[in-house]
Amino acid sequence: MSYDRARARAILERARTEGRTTLSADENATICAAYQIPIPPQALAASAGEAARIAKEIGYPVALKIASHDILHKSDAGGVTLNLADAKAVEAAYESLVTRAKAYKKDARIDGALVQRMAGAGVELIVGAITDPSFGKLVAFGVGGVMVELLSDITFRLAPVTAAEAQAMFDEIRGKEILGGVRGGPAANREALAALIENVSHLVDDIPEIVEVDLNPVFASSSGAIAADVRILLDFTPAPERYRPSRDEIKRAMNRIMRPESIAIIGASAEEGKIGNSVLKNLVNGGYKGRILPIHPSLDSVLGIKACKSIKDVPGDVDVAVFAIPARLVAKVLQECGEKHVAGAVLIPSGFAETGNVDLQREALDVARQNHIRLMGPNIYGFYYTPMNLCATFCTPYDVRGKVALSSQSGGVGMAILGFSRSSKMGVSAIVGLGNKADLDEDDLLTFFEDDPDTDVVAMHVEDLKDGRSFAEVAKRVSAKKPVIVLKAGRTSAGARAARSHTAALAGNDRIYDDVLKQSGVVRAYSLNDMLEFARCLPLMPAPKGENVLIITGAGGSGVLLADACVDNGLALMSMPPDLDQAFRKFIPPFGAAGNPVDITGGEPPTTYQNTIRLGLEDQRVHALVLGYWHTIITPPMVFARLAAEVVEEQRRKGINKPLVASLVGDIEVEEACAYLFERRIPAYPYTTEKPVAVLGAKYRWARGAGLI
Amino acid sequence: MSYDRARARAILERARTEGRTTLSADENATICAAYQIPIPPQALAASAGEAARIAKEIGYPVALKIASHDILHKSDAGGVTLNLADAKAVEAAYESLVTRAKAYKKDARIDGALVQRMAGAGVELIVGAITDPSFGKLVAFGVGGVMVELLSDITFRLAPVTAAEAQAMFDEIRGKEILGGVRGGPAANREALAALIENVSHLVDDIPEIVEVDLNPVFASSSGAIAADVRILLDFTPAPERYRPSRDEIKRAMNRIMRPESIAIIGASAEEGKIGNSVLKNLVNGGYKGRILPIHPSLDSVLGIKACKSIKDVPGDVDVAVFAIPARLVAKVLQECGEKHVAGAVLIPSGFAETGNVDLQREALDVARQNHIRLMGPNIYGFYYTPMNLCATFCTPYDVRGKVALSSQSGGVGMAILGFSRSSKMGVSAIVGLGNKADLDEDDLLTFFEDDPDTDVVAMHVEDLKDGRSFAEVAKRVSAKKPVIVLKAGRTSAGARAARSHTAALAGNDRIYDDVLKQSGVVRAYSLNDMLEFARCLPLMPAPKGENVLIITGAGGSGVLLADACVDNGLALMSMPPDLDQAFRKFIPPFGAAGNPVDITGGEPPTTYQNTIRLGLEDQRVHALVLGYWHTIITPPMVFARLAAEVVEEQRRKGINKPLVASLVGDIEVEEACAYLFERRIPAYPYTTEKPVAVLGAKYRWARGAGLI
Repeated sequence: MSYDRARARAILERARTEGRTTLSADENATICAAYQIPIPPQALAASAGEAARIAKEIGYPVALKIASHDILHKSDAGGVTLNLADAKAVEAAYESLVTRAKAYKKDARIDGALVQRMAGAGVELIVGAITDPSFGKLVAFGVGGVMVELLSDITFRLAPVTAAEAQAMFDEIRGKEILGGVRGGPAANREALAALIENVSHLVDDIPEIVEVDLNPVFASSSGAIAADVRILLDFTPAPERYRPSRDEIKRAMNRIMRPESIAIIGASAEEGKIGNSVLKNLVNGGYKGRILPIHPSLDSVLGIKACKSIKDVPGDVDVAVFAIPARLVAKVLQECGEKHVAGAVLIPSGFAETGNVDLQREALDVARQNHIRLMGPNIYGFYYTPMNLCATFCTPYDVRGKVALSSQSGGVGMAILGFSRSSKMGVSAIVGLGNKADLDEDDLLTFFEDDPDTDVVAMHVEDLKDGRSFAEVAKRVSAKKPVIVLKAGRTSAGARAARSHTAALAGNDRIYDDVLKQSGVVRAYSLNDMLEFARCLPLMPAPKGENVLIITGAGGSGVLLADACVDNGLALMSMPPDLDQAFRKFIPPFGAAGNPVDITGGEPPTTYQNTIRLGLEDQRVHALVLGYWHTIITPPMVFARLAAEVVEEQRRKGINKPLVASLVGDIEVEEACAYLFERRIPAYPYTTEKPVAVLGAKYRWARGAGLI
Repeated sequence: MSYDRARARAILERARTEGRTTLSADENATICAAYQIPIPPQALAASAGEAARIAKEIGYPVALKIASHDILHKSDAGGVTLNLADAKAVEAAYESLVTRAKAYKKDARIDGALVQRMAGAGVELIVGAITDPSFGKLVAFGVGGVMVELLSDITFRLAPVTAAEAQAMFDEIRGKEILGGVRGGPAANREALAALIENVSHLVDDIPEIVEVDLNPVFASSSGAIAADVRILLDFTPAPERYRPSRDEIKRAMNRIMRPESIAIIGASAEEGKIGNSVLKNLVNGGYKGRILPIHPSLDSVLGIKACKSIKDVPGDVDVAVFAIPARLVAKVLQECGEKHVAGAVLIPSGFAETGNVDLQREALDVARQNHIRLMGPNIYGFYYTPMNLCATFCTPYDVRGKVALSSQSGGVGMAILGFSRSSKMGVSAIVGLGNKADLDEDDLLTFFEDDPDTDVVAMHVEDLKDGRSFAEVAKRVSAKKPVIVLKAGRTSAGARAARSHTAALAGNDRIYDDVLKQSGVVRAYSLNDMLEFARCLPLMPAPKGENVLIITGAGGSGVLLADACVDNGLALMSMPPDLDQAFRKFIPPFGAAGNPVDITGGEPPTTYQNTIRLGLEDQRVHALVLGYWHTIITPPMVFARLAAEVVEEQRRKGINKPLVASLVGDIEVEEACAYLFERRIPAYPYTTEKPVAVLGAKYRWARGAGLI
């Protein structure tokens, strides 16, 4: 597409000069022309007679719409009359339109009425754009018309979008079938509609001052897509600048922070219960092999380790300084860290922005920026990085090494991560507190974990993204390699800015997160426990190679619940090929249920589980397995667990590795059986049919986002 | 309302005589008139000229709609033209309507076209009715118009409904705000709309042969509600009769079954591993104090207990016979049980309908009915009833007494109930297997548990309801006294009958369950684990006295997630009164967050938890508390648990008892703290902010359904 940006900019500049944030119908039309956004033939009439003349010129039937900068929602003011068929009707409509508009808003300046050819048949859609404080420009698409807010069926995407991306938006709305036409009406021309969305996305991307666009309704039919009503809103307030180090800069700093050769503890203490004491002990007891450098204003040594009066007195380089001193002293010591070329400062202390001391935080950040120090925190528990045996935190050490990296914005969630990890023996590479995120945030962590061979999955608790657009970019790149799980907290917070357009009114903060995270390949967790279980299980499963999920169950009742859970989690139950069905039937009694789920019933010998699992693993048409175990006298829990693990291991040795999860229903011994299976890298849960399917669903969401299936 | 049932029936009889299952426009109009369902003035025209004459008579503008029994969906056939303003337009429209209809369906018999006065402005709704195999007649209400299937925004209710119940349906649809009018259009007259729904519900209730009704669109405006299009479908197949013992009969039988004085074991066995052996041992070892009567064809005693050759040889009455013999022998022994006036037969054996042996099951049922024996099962694990120390099952005994009664249709789910109960030390009154439900079903169990002083909550796993209408009635009555929790499995099963009306197309099986269960006051659980946790927690909490939920948290991050969970679970975060805010502020640091959640921060002394909980419990405006504990060095988990339990106990002694749940985030010690709190009747969960709020949400759903708040 080629756009006439200069022509659109000229309109903008006129509005800026005149101090306007809305545009006239003519101006809207010019901008639409410049960006190839089709609108019906139209012209502004300043009198009833002129309206009739224009109508004749552009052709009947026409619509009349009140033209006034003071009336934003024309329908609400009774300012729209449709389907006018002749001059008499147009003239009458003009007069009553003006009367109604004046009654609606006494002091409204009325420029006349827009005469517009009726757009003709087609489905009614909305295309729009908004500006989000974190994500910037977003383009929107949904079901349009007068009920748009009631239906609230809309999807958002970072602008600009390609035509292909625009087409992908079609599938994201509940009412997507509307594009096929409504009750004998024409289907929408998908290419024309996608082009329109693409063009709107470029308009707002090219011209930042356009903060909201509403095209509602857009009539889409077989002949094209045409915006019957256009609303464009402007904001000339300059956007705040964002600090954006390069990817290399981030990696360099993060490498020194996460894999430091030396760590100074500012405020190291010999006194039990002090943070500076806990941090020092954790570094030592955790087994960190680099240099540990206690900094203390008076002592020569702390806990038997030689101390320095100031970080400046430390011989050689220092990579990381962990701060365990009061907030008000931080900035001064940061200055000294700068002189020492410290890469990262871990600011454990609270008392910054979270307690209202915004200036103190700003000051610390300024010093850090001037000195090229990256800040972690403030107001955090610190961080763990197990490949370095690094416990730079005042919490208890954690030493179960593994491939899961986690971060949290909140200390409470951090403690939940730690407790859950320990309780479930989850193998962890890193746990990082981000706290107030004065500087380092999720982007930086992702950039490090992306290339970290010790991390296979990243799980993040996020309350807000400082720069959602940048996060989306990084997450999209990282997600293609390893799963990124995000628990976005604060689902209820409404957008800060009052909405003036329909699109903006529909842009709940959470809905934008939902759409953008999905588009970035991120697996969103909707609960703390889901985030933790996803983190625990995703590294245990290989990526699926296709959508065919097969349920093998000993209990029909479990099978039904597992199938429900598959539907809830967007998993596709494989439709069973007759030959495979026959193959399964060899192992199960004649009355066992055919198809999927495979119901082996509870009365068969234990080997039936093994035989059917083997069949499912070996058949290439099956891409993932869900097992439903039922505790019986014939097959006690541990017998099942051993048999299942055995056949999975046998197949793994043959190079066959498929995602496989298990639900165990039975008496208390199933808990031991689940632990046994987890140790063998098979996610297995007792007393629930939902959780195992949810973690499989998360793996699938990741694989789809990464384009693997 | 008074209806002219005879007039409507006459129409039906004519259709029956003529072998039709659809009605003409005139017949529809007559039925609508008989049931006070307003429709626009209209008449059938058999020619273009007649159409124009009729139009003049009823007044312009008019709509023309093709009239043909062979065309069910007129819009799809291009068979509707709206807004015709004069004779010329009517005549032209008539001709092209007929042409299009013939093109759409070559051999369609066309009766002409219905001329109908345009209904005028108003919001477009759908009112309809369907006949569900389990629930019978249901009335439906939702957003209407041509997009009705795309929007799929509809709610169902057992017919008939009162006007007040019809008004309650308004709040059940997503687009409920539509009733307030769309973009300056008139609001709907709620009374008129409710009356219309009420009338439709009586129509289908009075005349069972009317199996589907579609009024779409219904135009609702300030002046009334009028059905612009009417579709009525008939089915003259007689409905199957249902066995419906009286409530007293059920209670009498269930009392003998659940609290028997004597139990015979048909097929009692001394051989380890046999079901008849396990049942006998469980009865003995479980501590059952009544008479235990082994029945064995040859032995004089089994496991040292005197045996009889036949149940007929047993001296005195027998209340219950537990069957542990093959399916094919069951009917014969049931006959003998009948002679002995046994109240209930517990049919453990499988091999009936679930394996295709439908006749065998039918035969057993016939014998049972003839002999006034109620059947439990077949194909079940049996049942537990702890107040009688009764383990009439082959599973392991369960002896943690409590007030929770559970049932399952599936043995797998039954085992999950058992395992979960044992693991969580859930106090149980009964666990009952219902299996194939040849006879006894959820209605019977609910009728017993309703008056059982040992049961405070009933949780049921249900795959299908044989008689959903009867269940809804009983559940509504029981729910008013004690919570009924239902896990409905089989969310994905579509209705068995192909739908011919829009209403039926929108009536997913699961949606009906959702609506009807809610209307019956049932707390629906959407996952196995939720069912189990709800069952465990609901009896621990008193009913809330109002909607005001207050969160008290040590970690701001937990507070955000707990607030999210409250929104997800339909809980209302109390808006904090200034004086109460001030009162909380006394206990928390100046930077602690105001309002709700109350963020006491992690740095305060342990007593801060206690002081703030006390404040929340004592203030009458607070109706429920959600605690977010954060593990810190200052307040370790067990310190928190003791302090929290102490203040709750202190208030309970003063007669203050409010629902209170806790989320504990922290290191592994929080698990012990949660167990401690649970023992003191405070639901508390580690590593999750969702589960505690979900159980509180379930309590609220029950309290609302029971009309307590």
